[in-house]
Amino acid sequence: MKLRGIVAGNLRRLRMAKGLSQEEVAHLAGLDRNYVGNLEREQNSPTVDTLERIAAVLEAPAVELFREP
Amino acid sequence: MKLRGIVAGNLRRLRMAKGLSQEEVAHLAGLDRNYVGNLEREQNSPTVDTLERIAAVLEAPAVELFREP
Repeated sequence: MKLRGIVAGNLRRLRMAKGLSQEEVAHLAGLDRNYVGNLEREQNSPTVDTLERIAAVLEAPAVELFREP
Repeated sequence: MKLRGIVAGNLRRLRMAKGLSQEEVAHLAGLDRNYVGNLEREQNSPTVDTLERIAAVLEAPAVELFREP
């Protein structure tokens, strides 16, 4: 499985577990409101810094975004 | 520990375990010859796609780059 796909799936899982919308996560992480949706559709290749900010919003260790399902 | 630092440490550890130089990893991953050195000095924020290519060169699951030491 491509790493983008792993990140997309984990991002969606962690986001929904927190009961947050894509726009709420994007806003809290200081990102464009469509960016989280693009990540969940594997349309972008996010940087380490961006994913660290998203993990902080989701209150999850960053490594959780990279675990194989 | 910042995610850049975690990636830098794991990259160096995995690279040395394979007995590869920074330039060899950069070449095999199709990156600028100085890029891997920059990553190990936490000077860049690499993308998911770039780290996937580096993990493939190091013959390690990508998640290994993100594990806390």
